[in-house]
Amino acid sequence: MIVDTLIHARWIIPVEPESVTYEYHSLVIDKGRIIDLLPTQQAKTQYQGTTTENLVDHALLPGFVNCHTHAAMTLMRGIADDLPLMEWLQNHIWPLEQKWMSEAFVRDGTDLAIAEMILGGTTCFNDMYFFPDITAQQAVQYGLRACVGLIVIDFPTIWAENSAAYIAKGLDIHDHFRHQPLISTCFAPHAPYTVSDEPLQKIRTLADELEMPITMHVHETAHETEQALAEKGQRPLERLHNLGLINPAFMAVHMTQLTDEEISRFAESGAHIVHCPESNLKLASGFCPVARCLAAGINVALGTDGAASNNDLDMISEMRTAALLAKAVAEDASCVPAMTALRMATINGAKALGLEHEIGSLTVGKSADLIAIDLNHLETQPLFNPVSQIVYAASRHQITDVWVAGKQLLKQRQLTTINLPLLKQRILEWQDKLKH
Amino acid sequence: MIVDTLIHARWIIPVEPESVTYEYHSLVIDKGRIIDLLPTQQAKTQYQGTTTENLVDHALLPGFVNCHTHAAMTLMRGIADDLPLMEWLQNHIWPLEQKWMSEAFVRDGTDLAIAEMILGGTTCFNDMYFFPDITAQQAVQYGLRACVGLIVIDFPTIWAENSAAYIAKGLDIHDHFRHQPLISTCFAPHAPYTVSDEPLQKIRTLADELEMPITMHVHETAHETEQALAEKGQRPLERLHNLGLINPAFMAVHMTQLTDEEISRFAESGAHIVHCPESNLKLASGFCPVARCLAAGINVALGTDGAASNNDLDMISEMRTAALLAKAVAEDASCVPAMTALRMATINGAKALGLEHEIGSLTVGKSADLIAIDLNHLETQPLFNPVSQIVYAASRHQITDVWVAGKQLLKQRQLTTINLPLLKQRILEWQDKLKH
Repeated sequence: MIVDTLIHARWIIPVEPESVTYEYHSLVIDKGRIIDLLPTQQAKTQYQGTTTENLVDHALLPGFVNCHTHAAMTLMRGIADDLPLMEWLQNHIWPLEQKWMSEAFVRDGTDLAIAEMILGGTTCFNDMYFFPDITAQQAVQYGLRACVGLIVIDFPTIWAENSAAYIAKGLDIHDHFRHQPLISTCFAPHAPYTVSDEPLQKIRTLADELEMPITMHVHETAHETEQALAEKGQRPLERLHNLGLINPAFMAVHMTQLTDEEISRFAESGAHIVHCPESNLKLASGFCPVARCLAAGINVALGTDGAASNNDLDMISEMRTAALLAKAVAEDASCVPAMTALRMATINGAKALGLEHEIGSLTVGKSADLIAIDLNHLETQPLFNPVSQIVYAASRHQITDVWVAGKQLLKQRQLTTINLPLLKQRILEWQDKLKH
Repeated sequence: MIVDTLIHARWIIPVEPESVTYEYHSLVIDKGRIIDLLPTQQAKTQYQGTTTENLVDHALLPGFVNCHTHAAMTLMRGIADDLPLMEWLQNHIWPLEQKWMSEAFVRDGTDLAIAEMILGGTTCFNDMYFFPDITAQQAVQYGLRACVGLIVIDFPTIWAENSAAYIAKGLDIHDHFRHQPLISTCFAPHAPYTVSDEPLQKIRTLADELEMPITMHVHETAHETEQALAEKGQRPLERLHNLGLINPAFMAVHMTQLTDEEISRFAESGAHIVHCPESNLKLASGFCPVARCLAAGINVALGTDGAASNNDLDMISEMRTAALLAKAVAEDASCVPAMTALRMATINGAKALGLEHEIGSLTVGKSADLIAIDLNHLETQPLFNPVSQIVYAASRHQITDVWVAGKQLLKQRQLTTINLPLLKQRILEWQDKLKH
């Protein structure tokens, strides 16, 4: 049988079923989908690929699902470091955004983020930012999958004047991209302290009707929970429960402040946590109790957060930090083993976005969103377990090839859909503007 | 004037003086030493290099000083993950060491570590392992600087039968390498729970006489301090103070368990802490209170620990983890800013080893131990502050060139002193042996 792409790999880590690693197997891709996964010897007799890849030193695995980004903020990477969250936002990020926010800013920042994400093996990202239509458009242009967050915030910005306008513009984007297979949308109310009850109630109704997920920063810092308790008499999570928001279509991003009762109630709701360990560390926001959340049965996905507070969009590094930090926080070195970290970065992200039937594992029938990592680098030798090497020793520079929906976006470390010199030139122009 | 090497760089980060970054400057190297640092325009008129490097996109900085390694253990990278310290040691690492430890094991493992360290910008490492003579010999062979720890432990191994033998063999190594400029030595009693008072007293006397530093794992876990308190009625640090060990020539590695009184007393002693954040996280050992230690005036250096518990020898990643983790542990995002992390990885390490007059900064008169990082990667764009990009965004793969004592060990990412294919072949043989 002639197929679009046939990939022979030293290892295939499908993620589902869990803890399985196939050796000398091949993945068969046709019309953008995975149609078979079988031993290479058999594959060579059964299939002929229009394109064939021989990845003799590589592991093939599902692409990373980065469940929390502010892609355009990559333009502000390193512009203000070593500051607490509110000072960083109020004195640096928000003033810069007020001055420079535009379609061009979002386009160029998103392009930089998309290039960095493809180079780092991310095949799907969930974004929250202004001009989400531009974010969706750029993702389509470069072939990357995105769940685009339709931002809602109480105060006016260049993107919308009030919460009704944010919601209306969001719905237009939802309609515009509804038949675009790479794009899905979710509501993205910014945070409990920046969105009031009325828009949240409206979002809840619309999300139910349109079957859209909701993503929101929740319990990012102790300051947030303490202030809410002082001002409104309840912690933000309780308010969101009371508003009916916390359900299997809800993603709570950060969640560093959690009581045992909150963990139990959240687990019962079927909602998801998006853990952003490097951002939480850098902004000294606190520690998400990942091991306790996983033990309670909560689906925990991973996000890098924006590159202005990370300072990268590197999901390998985020997996490693998540695995290492969870052990120390739980005082148990057996917490979040390498395979769990890899699941957080792949299938758990797909589940959080409601896309688990389409992506997140190398399963026959799913979209061909996958990456190859060359493990024959000195830094990943010797090799006793490829999953351990990927999570604890490999660098994103070892990722050689990336496919989304069967289309190759990275080929032997070369971007196939992005003109890198031109992109760098545009970034340089923003660097000059932003620093003055 | 004709000199050995003239390096023109986009940025030079000398580390001393602190917080200075020179733009379009040049470093002048002759006979292994830094003899000048001046604007490139001037350098071009004053000096002519036998070798000249034009690093138009690069930052030049002192090489990293990795203050805690078990280099040969790189052969066990990823062989046993996600386990607590004592289970990891007793059921996995020690049995494997008992079976396989030999001169050949130490030689090949050290070669792998040295290659990885050079590729990652480390120019000096402080090792603790068996057969330290082999470690020193391999470092000399490949041109890397090392402070070789002369291990002492109460129980017999293939290296020595009792503490007197460990010490005697150590002294032979000290004598043998005393005129080798790349090699210094220190005593390396393993830990308070594995070395008794008598050898510690002897080590203290010898270290004073020979002016050698001492390095030791101290307060790595709560289990260690609790067990000592239960069995001996005092915490290990108190015992070491009473034995007279804690002085400006002492390096305490790990130090995750520290009371305020212990921090004050340690600060007064002038002794050094070697912080190994990734190992402490991975083994769930605890959090070293770095911000409090720095505030008390303690010199805190950085180490990766062995690659069997890290799982790499990547000092850029270790700097990043140290900077991020310190903020969260102290609940203060302004703790350990990027420049402090870079100092921990360079000049603080040099101070801990008593080598600050020779290495740790790009200072006229010091040895030319330095590295170049190419910041013109998408992942470090835009660029507002090179130190921030190096600590928070760059990867070790961006390190292009490495010099030790003026000799170039890495040239455009190619190792100049190591035959990489042959090394990989030897590692593969060990992989086969160790996994059966």
